[in-house]
Amino acid sequence: MTLPQVVRDASLPERVTIYEVGPRDGLQNEKALVPTDTKAEFVQRLVRAGLPVVESTSFVHPRWVPQLADAAELLDLLGEAGKDMPVLVPNDRGLDRALEKGVRHVAIFGSATETFAQKNLNRSLDEQFAMFEPTVRRAREHGLDVRAYVSMCFGDPWEGEVPIAQVVEVGKRLFDLGASQLSLGDTIGVGTAAHVTALLAAFNEAGLPNDSLAMHFHDTYGQALANATAALRCGITTFDASAGGLGGCPYAKSATGNLATEDLVWLLTGLGIEHGVDLSELVRTSVWMAGQLGRPSPSAVVRALADSGP
Amino acid sequence: MTLPQVVRDASLPERVTIYEVGPRDGLQNEKALVPTDTKAEFVQRLVRAGLPVVESTSFVHPRWVPQLADAAELLDLLGEAGKDMPVLVPNDRGLDRALEKGVRHVAIFGSATETFAQKNLNRSLDEQFAMFEPTVRRAREHGLDVRAYVSMCFGDPWEGEVPIAQVVEVGKRLFDLGASQLSLGDTIGVGTAAHVTALLAAFNEAGLPNDSLAMHFHDTYGQALANATAALRCGITTFDASAGGLGGCPYAKSATGNLATEDLVWLLTGLGIEHGVDLSELVRTSVWMAGQLGRPSPSAVVRALADSGP
Repeated sequence: MTLPQVVRDASLPERVTIYEVGPRDGLQNEKALVPTDTKAEFVQRLVRAGLPVVESTSFVHPRWVPQLADAAELLDLLGEAGKDMPVLVPNDRGLDRALEKGVRHVAIFGSATETFAQKNLNRSLDEQFAMFEPTVRRAREHGLDVRAYVSMCFGDPWEGEVPIAQVVEVGKRLFDLGASQLSLGDTIGVGTAAHVTALLAAFNEAGLPNDSLAMHFHDTYGQALANATAALRCGITTFDASAGGLGGCPYAKSATGNLATEDLVWLLTGLGIEHGVDLSELVRTSVWMAGQLGRPSPSAVVRALADSGP
Repeated sequence: MTLPQVVRDASLPERVTIYEVGPRDGLQNEKALVPTDTKAEFVQRLVRAGLPVVESTSFVHPRWVPQLADAAELLDLLGEAGKDMPVLVPNDRGLDRALEKGVRHVAIFGSATETFAQKNLNRSLDEQFAMFEPTVRRAREHGLDVRAYVSMCFGDPWEGEVPIAQVVEVGKRLFDLGASQLSLGDTIGVGTAAHVTALLAAFNEAGLPNDSLAMHFHDTYGQALANATAALRCGITTFDASAGGLGGCPYAKSATGNLATEDLVWLLTGLGIEHGVDLSELVRTSVWMAGQLGRPSPSAVVRALADSGP
C-alpha cells in the first residue's frame, strides 16, 4: 500500500489522539436506517483498526434523529467495551438513558452562536448553560467524564462571521460547568488556518490549555487538513474525525462533511506523529461501510487506496 | 455567497500569484476531445475571473496527447493575448511550433526520478538535461521566459520515496540551464506538510530563493491545501492550481488530481492574502466547464458554492 514519506518536524506533537465520530456524527444524518448490528460491526471494526476513542451513538430523542433511535440496543450489542466509548447526551433525559446503560463518558453539544442555539437547542445562547448545568453536574456526580462540543466556532450559516471572543466565552462557560475537554467545531467548514491559530491562542489566553481542547474540522471547503496542520502547530493533540468522511452538517449543503479519519491518518503518518491506527484496516472498514450505505466514500485517501487495490 | 472570515497571519506573504494550469494540465488527460473554441472560452473566462497566469496548452506531439493536438489553432483563437500565456514545450520541435505562434513564455517538463524520466521522456535522469539544454537555450535566445516543471518531487509510483537531495540536484540543474522558475510537483499527491518545508529549505540552501520556486500540489490524498499552507509559511508566493480541480496524474488512479484553484482561493481569501481572483466568477466558469465535460467538479469549494446557489 502507498504511504507517505515520513518527514518529522520537531516542533509538532509526537503523538495525537484521534477521536472517531463516524458512528454518531457520521451516521446521524443518514436517511435510510442502518441496522443496529451493522452499526455494532462498524464500531468494532474501528476499534480493531486502532482508533483509541470511538463515540458510538447519541441518546437524542428519536423524533430528532431517527437514525440513532437504537442507541440502547447498540450499547447492548457492544457490551462491556461500549461502556468505555463516549456517547452524546443532548440533555438530562439523554443522560438518564446513558446512565441506565452504564456508560462512563458522555458528550454534550453546545453552540457558539445565538441562531444555532435557537435552531438546534431551542434555547438562547445564554439559556443553553442553564440547560446543560444539571446534566454535567449529574454526570460528574456519577463519576462520568464529560466532553463539550462547541459548534459553529468559525462561522455560522445564518450569522456569518462569529467573533473569536464570543466563541471563547461560550467555550469557557461550558468548560467551567465541569467538562474535561472542549471540542471546537468548524461545523460548516468555513475556517482557514490563521483563524485556527488565532482561536486557539485566545483559548490559551483565557486559561484553557491545549490538553483541554480538541479540534473538529469539516472539509466542506477543502480546508480540514490545512486547519488540522495549523492546530498541530499550536500543540493540539486531539482531533475529531469520521471514518471515510461520513456525515456532514445538515445546514451546509455539500457532498463533503466531516474530516475523513483516513485523510488525517495520512497526514499524521507523513509527519511521523504516532496515532496507533492501521490505515489499511481502516480503509477496508470504510469501503465496507460505503457498501452498506450504497455510495462511495468522500475521503480522498479511501478513494485513492481503494482504487489502487489492497 | 459564503466566504471565509479573514484572519491575517503577519508571517505569511501578502500576495500570491496563482499559475492556472487547468486548460493544459487539467484537460490533457480528458479522453473525449474538447472543441478548440470551448478551450478558448475556458481560457478567456479564467482570465476574466482574474487569474494572472493561464498556461493555455502544450505543443506536445499529438500522438502522445491527442487532446492538445489543436495547440496552434487554440493560439490562433486566443490572438494577441495568447502570446503572453505560457505553453508547455516538451522538446525542440515543440519549441519551434511555439515560436511560430509568437509565444513569449514556455515551460519544459522534467522528472526528479529515473523511472519517470524513462517513462515520460524516454531518457535517463541524466539524459534529460542534454535534451532540454538546446530547447532552453534557443528559447532564451528568442527572448522567451522559461519555466521548468520538476515532477515526482515527493514520491514516485514506481520508486516510492524520492530523496530530497536528488530533487534539489535535478531542480538546480534544470534551473541552471536557464529557467526563471521551477515548479516543484507532487505529481502523485503523496507529500505532507513537513516534507514540503524540508524540501524548500534544501532548495534555499542550494541557492534557489523562494521567488524562483513555485509549488504544484495534487489532492490525491487530500493534502494539497495543508501542503500549500506549509509552503506559504516558507514564503512561497507562486502556486499552480487547476480550475475546478480538473485533471490528475495518469499514474495515480484516483478521482482527485490537481489542487483546485477555487480551494486555493478560499484558503488565500481566509488568510487575507491578495490573489486578484473573483471566486464567484471562477466557480461559474468551473461549473460551466464541468457541464462541457459531463461530470461534476471534484473541487470542494465548487461543489459547496454551486450547491448553495449563486
